[in-house]
Amino acid sequence: MKQAKFVVVEGLEGAGKSTAINAVLDTLKQAGIEEIKNTREPGGTALAEKLRTLVKQEHEGEQLHDITELLLMYAARVQLVENVIKPALNSGVWVVGDRHDMSSQAYQGGGRQIAKETMLTLKETTLGDFKPDLTLYLDIDPRVGLERARGRGELDRIEKMDMSFFDRTRARYLELANQDDSVIIINADQAIEQVAADIKSALESWLDV
Amino acid sequence: MKQAKFVVVEGLEGAGKSTAINAVLDTLKQAGIEEIKNTREPGGTALAEKLRTLVKQEHEGEQLHDITELLLMYAARVQLVENVIKPALNSGVWVVGDRHDMSSQAYQGGGRQIAKETMLTLKETTLGDFKPDLTLYLDIDPRVGLERARGRGELDRIEKMDMSFFDRTRARYLELANQDDSVIIINADQAIEQVAADIKSALESWLDV
Repeated sequence: MKQAKFVVVEGLEGAGKSTAINAVLDTLKQAGIEEIKNTREPGGTALAEKLRTLVKQEHEGEQLHDITELLLMYAARVQLVENVIKPALNSGVWVVGDRHDMSSQAYQGGGRQIAKETMLTLKETTLGDFKPDLTLYLDIDPRVGLERARGRGELDRIEKMDMSFFDRTRARYLELANQDDSVIIINADQAIEQVAADIKSALESWLDV
Repeated sequence: MKQAKFVVVEGLEGAGKSTAINAVLDTLKQAGIEEIKNTREPGGTALAEKLRTLVKQEHEGEQLHDITELLLMYAARVQLVENVIKPALNSGVWVVGDRHDMSSQAYQGGGRQIAKETMLTLKETTLGDFKPDLTLYLDIDPRVGLERARGRGELDRIEKMDMSFFDRTRARYLELANQDDSVIIINADQAIEQVAADIKSALESWLDV
């Protein structure tokens, strides 16, 4: 039996993460991998879901500072990694994640421009050398992605940021993807069926390695 | 007019912080300081109070990891410092705090034995060089303090730790107090009236400087 792996899907709002995750799950099942745990970040434990709500909601009359947002994201991540992801992997269960640390690097580091040194320190302090085995990054122009996301309904606190925020977020995503062999860039500005096909193809190649 | 200052009362459970804070407030008022803001940590803003609840409560079936606790403490502290304490001081209002950063250093750093480097990094990342002008640390043997606290009712998640945890917490409090001129050590293992008198005396000396 192959050792269980942690596969993450990353990308901006409207990049098609839900469709991509379904394509990942189908491909893994076709490859004979039966036990798969789905996670989403922030969230995935009782406490982490409470933190997700605090991060996503508006706080009337109280500014939520960028560094507070970052600390809450990492608090939720520690709970998920230690209580759910690591135990699953250790018991042979694959984990497919809807977002992970790359989201913090891109949104809080790139988008909110928190210093790279701060980002690195917090990551190392909380995660050590734990990281996904494979990340599929769905790349899309935020103008296209947000248009799709808006079609789905109301936007949350973070999704209401201006376009320059999302341009910086995408730029950081691409920067990180290009310097990390465990990240595959998927062109998400295509018909949904083509995106799913590209994911299937990329994942099958990776599984054979 | 003297510039507004940030005065903090620190100490273990049952050290007599509430009485001490009243003594501080009385002394400041007698010295002609009219506008005073009270804070408590963790807490003091709507979001920080929600985080206080998450940190203090038991999480059935979910372990709250030490580093998560630390991140939530700092998230609450950033909200309080940036949204309440700094604006008060900047508008000439004195702030009297029931706990501040020294509590994290003592409880999470000393008690939970999180690495000093991690503690320092998190402090610098979130607070920069912001610190209280004066800290009154109420020193007491945890055996005496917890006996008093137990007399008041049920203990929360942190107060249920074993005695070695509180011994380490007190040791870190003393270590920090002895290397920082802005911290005054008050002997809290005395009759409550004597503790209040010692605080009044120490604070009056400090105010005259």
